[in-house]
Amino acid sequence: MSDTLDASLMARAVELAARGCYTTMPNPSVGCVIAHGDRVVGEGWHRRAGEAHAEVNALAVAGELARGATAYVTLEPCSHQGRTPPCANALIKAGVSRVVYGMQDPNPNVSGRGLEALRQAGILVDGPMLEAEAMTLNPGFIKRQRLGLPWVRVKLAMSLDGRTAMASGESQWITGPAARSDVQRLRARSSAIITGVDTVLLDNPALTVRPTELNLENAADIARDQPLRVVVDSKLRTPRDAQLLTDGGDTLVASAQGGQLPGAEVVVLDNGKGQVDLTGLLKVLATSECNEVLVEAGAKLAGAFIAAGVVDELIIYMAPKLLGSLARPLLALPLENMSDAVSVKIVDIQPVGDDWRITAHPVPAQGIN
Amino acid sequence: MSDTLDASLMARAVELAARGCYTTMPNPSVGCVIAHGDRVVGEGWHRRAGEAHAEVNALAVAGELARGATAYVTLEPCSHQGRTPPCANALIKAGVSRVVYGMQDPNPNVSGRGLEALRQAGILVDGPMLEAEAMTLNPGFIKRQRLGLPWVRVKLAMSLDGRTAMASGESQWITGPAARSDVQRLRARSSAIITGVDTVLLDNPALTVRPTELNLENAADIARDQPLRVVVDSKLRTPRDAQLLTDGGDTLVASAQGGQLPGAEVVVLDNGKGQVDLTGLLKVLATSECNEVLVEAGAKLAGAFIAAGVVDELIIYMAPKLLGSLARPLLALPLENMSDAVSVKIVDIQPVGDDWRITAHPVPAQGIN
Repeated sequence: MSDTLDASLMARAVELAARGCYTTMPNPSVGCVIAHGDRVVGEGWHRRAGEAHAEVNALAVAGELARGATAYVTLEPCSHQGRTPPCANALIKAGVSRVVYGMQDPNPNVSGRGLEALRQAGILVDGPMLEAEAMTLNPGFIKRQRLGLPWVRVKLAMSLDGRTAMASGESQWITGPAARSDVQRLRARSSAIITGVDTVLLDNPALTVRPTELNLENAADIARDQPLRVVVDSKLRTPRDAQLLTDGGDTLVASAQGGQLPGAEVVVLDNGKGQVDLTGLLKVLATSECNEVLVEAGAKLAGAFIAAGVVDELIIYMAPKLLGSLARPLLALPLENMSDAVSVKIVDIQPVGDDWRITAHPVPAQGIN
Repeated sequence: MSDTLDASLMARAVELAARGCYTTMPNPSVGCVIAHGDRVVGEGWHRRAGEAHAEVNALAVAGELARGATAYVTLEPCSHQGRTPPCANALIKAGVSRVVYGMQDPNPNVSGRGLEALRQAGILVDGPMLEAEAMTLNPGFIKRQRLGLPWVRVKLAMSLDGRTAMASGESQWITGPAARSDVQRLRARSSAIITGVDTVLLDNPALTVRPTELNLENAADIARDQPLRVVVDSKLRTPRDAQLLTDGGDTLVASAQGGQLPGAEVVVLDNGKGQVDLTGLLKVLATSECNEVLVEAGAKLAGAFIAAGVVDELIIYMAPKLLGSLARPLLALPLENMSDAVSVKIVDIQPVGDDWRITAHPVPAQGIN
């Protein structure tokens, strides 16, 4: 069996896994290919928590042809009974003779147990293979299992000269429809959307996933489960008639003081300065099984997340405009000295319509890397 | 003869032409391929003003094999006696039977004459072919021929959030060595480098092409002819001991008032407000046969060029850092309303070391497009 063949079949399994990225949470996205040499006899991926895992779906396609085959699976098969029976058992029972895995289970308490069960049953186990790619599928799941925190993405939009609106506050969509659709897909893969009370007061947003704007085939299915909306609101200033409180969706308000808001759950997380403890909030969200969270806020709250050092990824949509030196800054981030500058690694820049999407990771990484 | 074959041989001619981009000015970069079908019998490019043109170099390689061949040339062959004899005559004399050209001569007074001379001699003439690529080779030459102005490139460096230095003025190279080497190559292809007197007072730069930093094979040859240095200095504040005045290189000081500066030529171009007339300066440079000019200045002068609407291309090196909201802006460009925003088209973003180079063209284009 050549390494090249193994890598190409694992790459296919990664491709299959990615199909689940909008629907599997709180589970990870996983893909599986079953093959004899280069002859694929089964493919599967995990679609939704509570439904069959990738391995089971692939075995169902392969049927009797699974016997003596190699299974390529992006994540170590589970060995524990969850909402569905353990996948390691299913692979053993189906008679596969070899399992190639992408990465081990990120939960330190169970990592390696699935592989051990396979080995005990006489199955040849190889891996990790394409581990970096396998990890990229599930940044939030991995970080939550390892650190008890979600993957934190901050979405921003700016002009080419790093500005968001005119000094007067005059503003408009500075990015185009393709970028807005891309943001909808970011929302769709997120378990929670975090905003600030200032944005609620200013824009009264719904922060929902709108299927018509997703530009995805299974849009209606994806939008069925909406992400939790989270408002950072230290003094409970969210208006009673805000969309987030009245539209029937789930909303969590994180406050620094006690109180109640009809239509939302209020959690009190004081950082000792009368502000919301952002790290505490992220821990609460991880406990609620949030894998990836998206911060869609103004310069102040986005700046606070960055200053707190809890951001894993910046997604910046850059519009082809110069707004000039009087215009509002990208982030409220008052740094005095060059030594305070926040270093990032710009990992990707892609055109999205007439705009460009910049993906950057703060250095040192806050997350899984 | 297939269109695909023609296009691929013209693409090769464009590739050859590009080799001249650091040395041909004030001439255009031109490449030529001579072929029978797909069999290439000669290749040539123009290296330096006063030396042989691309066609003549390619014909010299082809020798007797030029007879009955097709010549692919990125720019219409010249029909006039310059420092070297007309290329149209050389192609006729060599007996080529067909000429495919990339673009016509941009000078409206001679455009088409070379092609007409070929046709008169019974040569089949086809084109334009890959005209956009052919035009990209010579933005400055084309704009100067058509409009009597050079191609104006503004080079800037900024952080991811659009800042250049801390508020205190604390600054350092925010971009890395690969970006600085890239800037050296921008300088090398420019006929003039424009800066402001504030930069001279602050940094006392040399604004020279340094062969050791070019990362190019023929670096010494390229650096032989240095670009003209131009200081925008309305009140003649350039210090007598500035490098630009004392290092023996050519320097032009554009002022709004008369006066003399040892080591420089002073040109008076008052815009009526006690400032230098930037468009007037560009006309002076075009008259001196400058094709491409590079503005390497601070936020104030770079902003003034943009506000004057005379910029063709912005080259922005974006460093992987956040400098925060107190830091200095990319451009001094005080715009009040969203309707004043400067629209650009971002045509390219490429990684350069750890930094990224953004190429953007103001819309509507100031230049040749």
